[in-house]
Amino acid sequence: MALTLVIGTKRWSTWSLRPWLALKVARIPFAEVEIALRQPETKAQILEWSPSGKVPLLDDDGFKVWDSLAICEYLADRFPEAGLWPEDAQARAVARCVSAEMHSGFMPLRRDCSMDVLADLPLAEINDEVKADIARIDAIWTDCRAHFGGRGEGGGGPFLFGRFSIADAMFAPVASRVRTYHLPVGAVSAAYVDAILGMAEVREWIAGAK
Amino acid sequence: MALTLVIGTKRWSTWSLRPWLALKVARIPFAEVEIALRQPETKAQILEWSPSGKVPLLDDDGFKVWDSLAICEYLADRFPEAGLWPEDAQARAVARCVSAEMHSGFMPLRRDCSMDVLADLPLAEINDEVKADIARIDAIWTDCRAHFGGRGEGGGGPFLFGRFSIADAMFAPVASRVRTYHLPVGAVSAAYVDAILGMAEVREWIAGAK
Repeated sequence: MALTLVIGTKRWSTWSLRPWLALKVARIPFAEVEIALRQPETKAQILEWSPSGKVPLLDDDGFKVWDSLAICEYLADRFPEAGLWPEDAQARAVARCVSAEMHSGFMPLRRDCSMDVLADLPLAEINDEVKADIARIDAIWTDCRAHFGGRGEGGGGPFLFGRFSIADAMFAPVASRVRTYHLPVGAVSAAYVDAILGMAEVREWIAGAK
Repeated sequence: MALTLVIGTKRWSTWSLRPWLALKVARIPFAEVEIALRQPETKAQILEWSPSGKVPLLDDDGFKVWDSLAICEYLADRFPEAGLWPEDAQARAVARCVSAEMHSGFMPLRRDCSMDVLADLPLAEINDEVKADIARIDAIWTDCRAHFGGRGEGGGGPFLFGRFSIADAMFAPVASRVRTYHLPVGAVSAAYVDAILGMAEVREWIAGAK
């Protein structure tokens, strides 16, 4: 087995962070190829690896898996012992719902508050579209913590479903944005942001972005 | 077991068509609630059912599952005998890659060629962004048919992975758009569009939209 994860610039590449974090937390060994985004040669370099022309891409001994969520599903399928989805069927279903909602949505937040893990940029004003996104994310985090946060193996944990899961990988870049832009969230969500940004693996990603 | 699928107006609701089709093809009994989109009361009606404020939503005896892709994953998890994902691990991984790529992408096509299953609207001109989307979709369909189309149980079939899978549910609304707007695709993709639009279940959806 030889896994290679092709990612974009760590400072900005939200989609790359997601499967990278899942691999790291699951202690699955992998090689890393970082392609500099926003350069003239970026597109050509990505196309050498990726059929969709996008990062991230996971190369598993030549077999190519692309898209952040599909890579996470592949890892969950291939390494079931890693427990990347919650074991409980309902928790797993909700984890997939919120992961998919993140995967396809929150365009205003993604457009107006792009991830920059090295920046501190308090927003003077937050427009209504971004406010609505933040409110929905705050509700997701608060609901998941309330209903499923205590259910993880070992009696809970600080993550959305207790133990770390793919849902946390999907929302980790949002936690980074909440801190960078000082976005308003409730107490439960603020504690969750602290938990995500306090993870050794997230700190390793940020150190690698410097 | 009592499943209810809450969907939007059949004529337009691409996201609703996806899990509806998966349920129908898998012969899983369900009740259907159709909410009229683009009405003053639409948002309030959806919020009565759906925590994300969007359709589709699957209600499973009060347990709520939302987002088209997450609903499909839930059905695959809950009804494994339905074979909604390909059985082969690599085929399943690629089916998830292309489903996720559809789920999060192709914004120009979605914006400029919105689904209308009752319309015939040949485009006089196709802008470059939509052209690029069509080219990528054409490549996905052609590649899947070439590599996996013959692998389905029973020696293949007309769908992306031989037998019908969630990947086909995800792309069915695109097949409808190719026909409505007369979008240019290669021979393999054109045959695939015919296969999707010829399905009894798709014809039932279109009849329901009238």
